[in-house]
Amino acid sequence: MKIAVLGTGVVGRTLAGKLATLGHSVTMGSRHAANPAALERAALAGPPARAATFAEAASDGELVINATGGAVSLGVLQSAGAHNLSGKVLIDVGNPLDFSAGFPPSLSVHNTDSLAETIQRTFPETLVVKALNTMRADLMVDPDRLAGGDHDVFLAGNDSAAKELVSGILREFGWRPEHIRDLGPLEAARGLEMWMPLWLRLYALQGNRMFNIKVVSD
Amino acid sequence: MKIAVLGTGVVGRTLAGKLATLGHSVTMGSRHAANPAALERAALAGPPARAATFAEAASDGELVINATGGAVSLGVLQSAGAHNLSGKVLIDVGNPLDFSAGFPPSLSVHNTDSLAETIQRTFPETLVVKALNTMRADLMVDPDRLAGGDHDVFLAGNDSAAKELVSGILREFGWRPEHIRDLGPLEAARGLEMWMPLWLRLYALQGNRMFNIKVVSD
Repeated sequence: MKIAVLGTGVVGRTLAGKLATLGHSVTMGSRHAANPAALERAALAGPPARAATFAEAASDGELVINATGGAVSLGVLQSAGAHNLSGKVLIDVGNPLDFSAGFPPSLSVHNTDSLAETIQRTFPETLVVKALNTMRADLMVDPDRLAGGDHDVFLAGNDSAAKELVSGILREFGWRPEHIRDLGPLEAARGLEMWMPLWLRLYALQGNRMFNIKVVSD
Repeated sequence: MKIAVLGTGVVGRTLAGKLATLGHSVTMGSRHAANPAALERAALAGPPARAATFAEAASDGELVINATGGAVSLGVLQSAGAHNLSGKVLIDVGNPLDFSAGFPPSLSVHNTDSLAETIQRTFPETLVVKALNTMRADLMVDPDRLAGGDHDVFLAGNDSAAKELVSGILREFGWRPEHIRDLGPLEAARGLEMWMPLWLRLYALQGNRMFNIKVVSD
């Protein structure tokens, strides 16, 4: 599948690298396609990944992944262009972290709204699915590296077919179906983003980020 | 130990009943000690539990538990009286749920503040510890009824001795030490209260509340 990964930070590189390894045709979008860092990062992601601008990547992709920080996501997606996102599934991995008052960050959107819903309202022709924002990048693409994969990933979105597509990508990453939890409509992204403050405390407590949560039920 | 449980809803009754069973001297506080519902609820909590006003209960207790809804907690604690709470450990089990726009509720305090911190600021002579707000009442007092107790409870607070006291109560409830996770200062209560939106989605997804989370780490 032709997949555009917007953002060349750790999350974007990790997702692009895994997707390329899985045989997808990956384009990594950044502000300036030809900047040395973007080219280097695309190279690190593996041979099938190439560097492009946000707009070129989004235009080329059948599926688009927002792997940018929540503070810049809307601007990045506007650079990508609404027409390049229209009718496509967009996986929003971002968290609306606000570091303006230091660490730990607060959330710039919360409680009665979320980054994912903001993106959906701004790009109504795009099928936004929130997923994967609840853990560190290397767990997203390789759940088995922690506790044999016995922990959970969540998704939320308003379109069932879009969520099924995303669920398929998660299964390709190695997530077993019983650990992929569909929380319902995109409004549920509020809970997924508001999980961050607890995640950040656990990170401080653990001293590392190699952890995730599992929902335990009867 | 002499323990005051403020609030006679499901959470208050469940906590009072278990604490009485464990041999503690429990007083359940409500707005009017002599109202039939309060008397009936104290009776349900077991013979050692008695009904009193918020102020009488708090005055009598060496440890105080706020088991009221977050929307009324501050008013209840003001009725209990700052002098009756001074120097004592207060376990805050409340969640600042705002049902004014229907279900699911939003949070009335969030992101850069929490109910627990609000209580701490209002009663600076009280040692507030946030705990147990992340699950249904019958799991709080009997973790083994789900997955053999293999799931987690969290606490947060600014006083180490107060947290050790609360940790002891949790162990009496049946929580094993490795599942009692101290998240640090009371500010971490933000994450514990902001967990509610995700809990509520999981509740809707599961169709029941017999679940909890476990932090999975290496």
